[in-house]
Amino acid sequence: MKTKNLNVVNNKLQLGKYPLESLASKYGTPLYVYDQLGIESKMDIFEDAFRSSKFKTCLVYASKAFLAPYFCNILNNRSWYQDATSIGDIYVMLESGFDASRIVYHGNNKKDSELEFAVKCGVGRIVVDNINELNRLIKICQKLNQKVDTLFRVNPGIEAHTHYYIQTSLLSSKFGESIFDLDLIKKIVEVYKHNEYVSLKGFHSHIGSQISDEKSFVENAKVMCEFTSNVSSLCNYPLTELNLGGGFGIKYLENDPDVNLKHMLSSIIETVEASGLSLEKLYIEPGRSVVGDSGLTLYTASYVKKTYGGKNYLFVDGGMTDNIRPALYNAAYTVENASNVSGEKDLKVDVVGRCCESGDIVAKDTYINDVKENDCIVVYSTGAYCHSMSSNYNSMLKPAVIFVDDDIHVVSRREELSDLMKLYEK
Amino acid sequence: MKTKNLNVVNNKLQLGKYPLESLASKYGTPLYVYDQLGIESKMDIFEDAFRSSKFKTCLVYASKAFLAPYFCNILNNRSWYQDATSIGDIYVMLESGFDASRIVYHGNNKKDSELEFAVKCGVGRIVVDNINELNRLIKICQKLNQKVDTLFRVNPGIEAHTHYYIQTSLLSSKFGESIFDLDLIKKIVEVYKHNEYVSLKGFHSHIGSQISDEKSFVENAKVMCEFTSNVSSLCNYPLTELNLGGGFGIKYLENDPDVNLKHMLSSIIETVEASGLSLEKLYIEPGRSVVGDSGLTLYTASYVKKTYGGKNYLFVDGGMTDNIRPALYNAAYTVENASNVSGEKDLKVDVVGRCCESGDIVAKDTYINDVKENDCIVVYSTGAYCHSMSSNYNSMLKPAVIFVDDDIHVVSRREELSDLMKLYEK
Repeated sequence: MKTKNLNVVNNKLQLGKYPLESLASKYGTPLYVYDQLGIESKMDIFEDAFRSSKFKTCLVYASKAFLAPYFCNILNNRSWYQDATSIGDIYVMLESGFDASRIVYHGNNKKDSELEFAVKCGVGRIVVDNINELNRLIKICQKLNQKVDTLFRVNPGIEAHTHYYIQTSLLSSKFGESIFDLDLIKKIVEVYKHNEYVSLKGFHSHIGSQISDEKSFVENAKVMCEFTSNVSSLCNYPLTELNLGGGFGIKYLENDPDVNLKHMLSSIIETVEASGLSLEKLYIEPGRSVVGDSGLTLYTASYVKKTYGGKNYLFVDGGMTDNIRPALYNAAYTVENASNVSGEKDLKVDVVGRCCESGDIVAKDTYINDVKENDCIVVYSTGAYCHSMSSNYNSMLKPAVIFVDDDIHVVSRREELSDLMKLYEK
Repeated sequence: MKTKNLNVVNNKLQLGKYPLESLASKYGTPLYVYDQLGIESKMDIFEDAFRSSKFKTCLVYASKAFLAPYFCNILNNRSWYQDATSIGDIYVMLESGFDASRIVYHGNNKKDSELEFAVKCGVGRIVVDNINELNRLIKICQKLNQKVDTLFRVNPGIEAHTHYYIQTSLLSSKFGESIFDLDLIKKIVEVYKHNEYVSLKGFHSHIGSQISDEKSFVENAKVMCEFTSNVSSLCNYPLTELNLGGGFGIKYLENDPDVNLKHMLSSIIETVEASGLSLEKLYIEPGRSVVGDSGLTLYTASYVKKTYGGKNYLFVDGGMTDNIRPALYNAAYTVENASNVSGEKDLKVDVVGRCCESGDIVAKDTYINDVKENDCIVVYSTGAYCHSMSSNYNSMLKPAVIFVDDDIHVVSRREELSDLMKLYEK
């Protein structure tokens, strides 16, 4: 939905003092625009509501939602942690000057070379996915004669109501080991006990993405506190940290359920405090909920095509290459005409892009007011999983990314034609 | 399915004289490998079967399936044409030395700047999508004082049985104008008649992708011949070319229907010859059927994870970033252990990658024989729409692409960590 600092001036949308039309014409479309003040006020909510007098609280930004050095700096300055899902992520973070000790390194299938890279970099926590990886990590640390602190990923078997692809905690998920497989868990703790290189600080769980229902998070917190406490006493092993993952939803459409983030976060804290578990650190890993609804995409309209079959198409100059989510998850978005805000939205259209593919949809069966050629079309809540999942299909060029506060910050430049040649050998 | 020139030596797969394992270890995994002789023999089939004594036949390779300068050279040397879906495609083709006069430029939503670029480059044919684009193109040609030959895209309303996203000819498709909207078609021809810059050579239609049923193609050919002939006499306007598009399917799985390409092509030729239409040029636009089943992807196995929920996962070191098709279209692939071909395939697994996402699937519910750590896993028929749709999600690096005949040709180098920084401004 509409980000905080958008307003209407002379029937046109502007972000802070910048008309969206002028951003579009200066930086070219498609264009990813982030409302930096919107992001920072979201970060304020996390910092205010996710705190406890009983343990340290760590906010870990899930960088797979959107990664860029400029934003790494903002995170670094506010002492946030960051999730890395690959050594590529780690590389970008380190190049940005982000503090390695606040990197939490994830992944169900890390290679030896990648684990070695991560250990050498001194990442703060490696989240070990399985016993095979644990054994390989121990060998690597032995070889390097270097110690590392880990969390171990478990699967609490909680079903969150979201798209199958982003449900991650079904009993049959690829991630982690089941909390119900206590024999295996005990075996894993034994492996930790009998080596001096890799230590287990606690467990990690993540129940899925884009979840708007507080109960799932509270349930996960309860289950994980109980599990941690059981394993700790069963194995006589101190477990001082707990990572509850992310998945906090945002509103994409007017009719999407409201998300009371502040209340969600407080409820998680209360649940953990009430569990009696004695913790040093509690982590959560928000991604989409930090950047998702403060990002938007600008397109230029060409025209509305009315087909003989009765369907109307609003053609814009981007699509599945800058936002694969409608095609991939059937995700829905809110669209508006930034050049002409007033007027009844009485034309039903599919907003589509320009790839040679029928799945190249920006928004399906949406209503829009009168659109003229070259109008600036805005799609809201594209801050997460759009830029990070973008492709060069059909040799489309990646859009620029700008952050807007009192100034405009170019965070990623627009790709140029010559960039298309960079990997090819003739 | 398995490409032509694969064979088993000492229980290991090799392509020509190169063991797949050695390619994997030399160039790193994931790795896209193309059997160049396989592609060339597919091209031979097209060249042999798609010919007529009555008109010139033009083979237009649909580059969106897979584009690379090395392959542009092969196409150029064999006098094939190429489809471009954007000026990015055109740029790569021209940089590769491909003959501009054999470029066919497509797209439902070309910008003025792109049309101008295409006209200036001298592309052979612009496929105009709609009357709005036609009027813009005329203005551009007037401004440049340059003439251009076009085809006009129409929608014959033929339903091919394929995935919705790659069906392109439903009555409500975004592409072209309906052949049933004769008033509009007549109006369009009038626009062509009354200008001296943009000429209409004929019509273009495309009914979808991955179609294995010959009848759809024959039906399309019949309908389009009749339509062309009707419009030509109705409007008293010579139409000397016809482009029937592509969409020829390939086999991904053993149980997929057989595709008799030679027979399909001959049937199309016979249908057009029998129609009595007097043509100078007939085009088709194969993409997937040229490169799809001669391409394969190599991965390195890490291990088989058996979950408490009962599902088994074979973890490999690539996935949705190098092949989005399983997640996007529910596409199925054939997987084999290239390091150990024999042995019963009695283990049911999901072959999955390493993205932080449950949709990161290479092959679902597939059977595989005994797999050991570091075995080389091959996925067949990944030659089309894998490399071209690849992304850097989770900061994954794009794999290298090699063509193999008697030698090995590096067509696209492997992306490096430093490439991840190229667009960012710090």
